[in-house]
Amino acid sequence: MRNIVLVGLPGSGKSSVGRRLAEILGYPFFDTDEMIENRYETPITDLFRTRGEAWFRDVEEGVVARVTRKPRGVLATGGGVVVREANLARLRQWGWIVALVAPPELLAQRLGPADHLPLVSRDNPAASLARLWAERSSKYLSADLVVDVSAAHVDDIVQQILRFLAEREQSAIRVQVPGGPYTVYVGVGNLGLLGHNATVAGLSGRAALVTTPALDRRYGDVAREALRAAGLRPATFLLPAGEPAKDWSTVGRLYGRLLQEGLDSTSPVFVLGGEELGDAAGFVAATYMRGIPLVHIPATLLAQLDSCVGGKVAINHPKAKNLIGAWHHPRFVLVDVSLAAASGVRSLRAGLAEAVKYAMVADAELLEFLENRLEALLQPDPRALSDLVFRCLALKARIVSQDEHESGPRLLLNYGHTFAYALEAATGYRRFSHGEAVAIGMTLAARLAVSLGLADESLLERQTRLLYRIGLPTHFSGVAPTSVLDALLHDKKRRAGRLRFVVPCGPGRGQVVDDVPVELVARTLGLQPSPA
Amino acid sequence: MRNIVLVGLPGSGKSSVGRRLAEILGYPFFDTDEMIENRYETPITDLFRTRGEAWFRDVEEGVVARVTRKPRGVLATGGGVVVREANLARLRQWGWIVALVAPPELLAQRLGPADHLPLVSRDNPAASLARLWAERSSKYLSADLVVDVSAAHVDDIVQQILRFLAEREQSAIRVQVPGGPYTVYVGVGNLGLLGHNATVAGLSGRAALVTTPALDRRYGDVAREALRAAGLRPATFLLPAGEPAKDWSTVGRLYGRLLQEGLDSTSPVFVLGGEELGDAAGFVAATYMRGIPLVHIPATLLAQLDSCVGGKVAINHPKAKNLIGAWHHPRFVLVDVSLAAASGVRSLRAGLAEAVKYAMVADAELLEFLENRLEALLQPDPRALSDLVFRCLALKARIVSQDEHESGPRLLLNYGHTFAYALEAATGYRRFSHGEAVAIGMTLAARLAVSLGLADESLLERQTRLLYRIGLPTHFSGVAPTSVLDALLHDKKRRAGRLRFVVPCGPGRGQVVDDVPVELVARTLGLQPSPA
Repeated sequence: MRNIVLVGLPGSGKSSVGRRLAEILGYPFFDTDEMIENRYETPITDLFRTRGEAWFRDVEEGVVARVTRKPRGVLATGGGVVVREANLARLRQWGWIVALVAPPELLAQRLGPADHLPLVSRDNPAASLARLWAERSSKYLSADLVVDVSAAHVDDIVQQILRFLAEREQSAIRVQVPGGPYTVYVGVGNLGLLGHNATVAGLSGRAALVTTPALDRRYGDVAREALRAAGLRPATFLLPAGEPAKDWSTVGRLYGRLLQEGLDSTSPVFVLGGEELGDAAGFVAATYMRGIPLVHIPATLLAQLDSCVGGKVAINHPKAKNLIGAWHHPRFVLVDVSLAAASGVRSLRAGLAEAVKYAMVADAELLEFLENRLEALLQPDPRALSDLVFRCLALKARIVSQDEHESGPRLLLNYGHTFAYALEAATGYRRFSHGEAVAIGMTLAARLAVSLGLADESLLERQTRLLYRIGLPTHFSGVAPTSVLDALLHDKKRRAGRLRFVVPCGPGRGQVVDDVPVELVARTLGLQPSPA
Repeated sequence: MRNIVLVGLPGSGKSSVGRRLAEILGYPFFDTDEMIENRYETPITDLFRTRGEAWFRDVEEGVVARVTRKPRGVLATGGGVVVREANLARLRQWGWIVALVAPPELLAQRLGPADHLPLVSRDNPAASLARLWAERSSKYLSADLVVDVSAAHVDDIVQQILRFLAEREQSAIRVQVPGGPYTVYVGVGNLGLLGHNATVAGLSGRAALVTTPALDRRYGDVAREALRAAGLRPATFLLPAGEPAKDWSTVGRLYGRLLQEGLDSTSPVFVLGGEELGDAAGFVAATYMRGIPLVHIPATLLAQLDSCVGGKVAINHPKAKNLIGAWHHPRFVLVDVSLAAASGVRSLRAGLAEAVKYAMVADAELLEFLENRLEALLQPDPRALSDLVFRCLALKARIVSQDEHESGPRLLLNYGHTFAYALEAATGYRRFSHGEAVAIGMTLAARLAVSLGLADESLLERQTRLLYRIGLPTHFSGVAPTSVLDALLHDKKRRAGRLRFVVPCGPGRGQVVDDVPVELVARTLGLQPSPA
C-alpha cells in the first residue's frame, strides 16, 4: 500500500489525523515541523525568525527527502511543503497526497492565539491564512484526495481517508454463493483497512481475533486497532500454528473461551493465520451458536490464493484429518499480500504449488505468468504476488460460484491432491510439506495423463521444469510405492470415490478421468507388474 | 398400522411372502394351515380326508377368530378361508386383505407333485386350480390390494405390499427448505416401513443406526431388518439416553466409530431416539465429512411433534447447553406414534406441553382438540396421538418453510421457553423436566400478557386448566425468583437478545413483544418492587 502524505493550512488537523491514521494502519508517523524542531531543539517560529524562511525551506526539503526514503509512513507536512516542486515530486512518488481543507476564517478561529506559527500574524490570523490559501490552494486542490474538514471530527476524516485507501489499494473479487455474495479484498499492506472492510460488511460489536502467537506479535496490534477504529471490540484468542490448531481438544476449549469473553450469536470471528487456522477457527465459527460471521485474513500464500475462498472448514479427529467439517462461507476475506511475502520461502513454495495446480488445469495464461514472473514471485515482489493471488482467486471464485459443494467443475481443483493425500498419509504427514506432496502428486497425475494418451510428454516436462524452478520436488524416494498405493486405495474407499483422477490434457486444460485401472496407477507410482 | 392378511390360491406364495413381511415389520407371523396341522399333529390332507371339508372349515374359522383377536400380525390364510363370509368380515376388520394372484396353470406348474394339497387333484392340478379360481376369484379380486405374482420374486412382492402400506398407513407432510424439500411420514406402527421410505428418499449402502440401549432392545431389530430389506447395510451405534448423548467427548468418539465402521461421505445416519439423541447424532451427521444424510425416527412425543422438524442440531459444551450446533435438515422423518405411546407418561406430558405451546400461539383449533381429546391422548390412544402429531408438524412445517433460520414467524415457537430456559438454568437442569419448565414458562408468559394488557385473564385461566389436566405444574417454588431473573438476563445478554418475549393475545394468537421492562418481568416472577 502506498504511504499517506497530509497537506493543508495550519489548523487543518494534519497532525491529529495523521497520528490516528498511522495508529490504525500500523505505520510510523512523521511530522516535518516536529522533526525540524527536534533536530534544532528550537521552536519553528524562532528558527524562522533567526534563520529566515529560505533556510527553513532547505532544511524542510532535506527532511522530506529523508522521510520519503522510508518504506512506510504517514507524514504530516508543514503547511509550506507544497510550495517547492521538488518536495511535491518526492511525496507524490512516495504516497497518496491527501489535502485537508477548510475556509481560512474557520481555521483562524480554531487556532486561537497564533504565536507559535511563523507565517500567521498574531493580530489578524484570518488575513494571514487567507493569503496563504490564495498562494497554495491550487497545490492543495490537486491532491489525490481532498477532504473538507470544516465540520468533520478527526475520526470522520480518518474514516474518509480509509475509504479512499480501501477503494484505491484493494482489488475486489465477488464470490457468488447461495448464502449471499461476499467480497475478497486483495492488496499489499492493507491489513489496516480491516476495520473499514468490516464496517462495509455490516459487522460490529464484540468480535474475536483468532491468530497464532507469532502472527499476533507481528500483526495483532494493527488488526485490533483497525477493528477498534471501526467500533468493534476485539478479544484475542491464540491457537498453535499449523495442524495442532485443528485438534479436537484445542477446538473444544476455544468454544468455552468465546463464551467467556462474551461472544454472542452475532459476533464475528476474524481469523488471522494460515490454512490450518482458517480451517479450525472457521469450523468454530460455523458451529458456535449454530454459526456466527467469519472473516478470513489469510497469512500464507497457500491460504491467500486458495483456501480462504470456497467455504470449506474442518478439524481433525485422532483417526483422520479433516474428518469433522462444515461449509461456512466468510462474510469477507482480506488478503494482505505482504503477510504472505513475510511468511518464508517454504511457505511461498507451498502456495506456488497450488498456483501451478490452477494454471495446469484451468488457466493457460496463468501458466505463462508463473513462468515469466517466477523470480519476482520468489523474491518475493509484493506486486507480483498480488497479481498472482488475484488471478488465482478470481479463477477460484468463478469455479466456486458455479459449483459450491464440489460436485462439478470444482473437482478439477483436486489436481495432484489424490496422490498427495496418499503420499502424506503413507509418511504420517511428517516427511513432506503439503506443497511438496502436491508437487509430486501433480507430477504423478501428469504422468498418468501421458500414459492414458491424454497429454503430451512435453506438457509433463513443462510442469516439471516449473516445479523445479520453484524449488519443489517432482519425485519421492524413501517411501515404499506400495504403501502409497495402499493409502490411495484406502482413501478412495473411505470417500466412496471411484479410482478417479484429475489429469492435465493441455496447458490450462484439466479433465476428470473415472475408473482408472489400478495397474496403471501402480505403474505410475513406479511399481513393476508382477512377472506372469 | 393395520395387520396384513394374505389370501390366494395354493402355490401363490402366501407363506414365504408373509414370513418375510412379518420379519421386516417386526410382526408375528401366523399361518392358518400350519396352526391347524400343529394343533392336530396331522397333515391337512389327512384331516380333509378323515374329517371332511365342513369339519375343517369350522376349525379354520375358529383359528381365524383366535388370530384376529391378537393385536398384531401377518396372517397367511389357507386358500379356502375366503369362502366363509364370517372369516372375511373378521379379517377385514383386523387388517388389510392382500390377494396374491396368478393364472392357475402357472400355479400348477409351480406346485409340482401336489400330494400335500387337499383340493388339488394329483393328476390334473391345473384343472383343480382353475375350478378353485372360478369359485373364489371374486373374493380375491375384491381384496384391498391385488398383487400379480406371475413373474415376481418374493422380495418384489414384499416391496409392493410395503409400498401399499407406506401409502395407506402414513400421512405425509412436506417441509419446504432451501436444501430441497423433505417428507415427514406419520403413522402408527410404521417403523417397519423405514426401509421403503429410505428407498423413496434415494438412500442406500452403508448406514448408521444411532440409538440408545433401551430403544435398541425394543425397536432395533425391526429398524435394521427394514433397512436391510431395502438393501441398506446398517451398523448400530449406541449413545446414552438424554443429555449425556450430547457430551463433547461422547460425540467425539462417535466420529471415530463411524469411520471405523466404514461410513463414507454418502452414508445416511438414522437416529432412533428422543430429542437429545436427534440433536447429538444430527450434529454428527451435519459435520462428519462436511455433512452426510440424516433421517430422524423420533421416539418421544416431544421429538415427534416438535424437534424432528426444523433442522436444529446441537451438542453441549461444559459451559453451556447447545453451544455448538448447526442447521442440518433431515432427508426424511419417520414418525411412528406407537413409539411415543410407549415412552411413558412423563415423556407424554413433556410432548403435550409443546403441543399447548403450538395451540396457544398459532392454532385455536388445536387448542380445542387438546381440550376435547386430552383423555384419549393421555391414555394414550395412538389414533389421537397421531392426529395431534400430524397437526403440530403440519403447523411447524409451514412455519419452518416460511422462516428457516428463526428470524420471523418461527420466533413464536419460543413461547414459554425464555422463562423455561432461565428456570432450568437456575436449578441446574435437575429440578424440572423440560416439559414442566415449559408449562411454568407459558404460565409466566401468559401472566405477562395479562399485565401488558394484551390478553384477558380468561385466556390464562384456560391455559392453566389445560396444563393442570395434563398433569403439568403452573408455578414454581423452592427456587429464588431472583436467581431465575438473573439467569434470564444473563441468557438474553449471551444471545444478544433484547428483553423479548412471546406472549399469547388470544386463543391461537401469539405475538412477539420487544423491550419488556425488567420490573414487569420481575413482578411476573413474583418479586415485589422494593419500597420507595
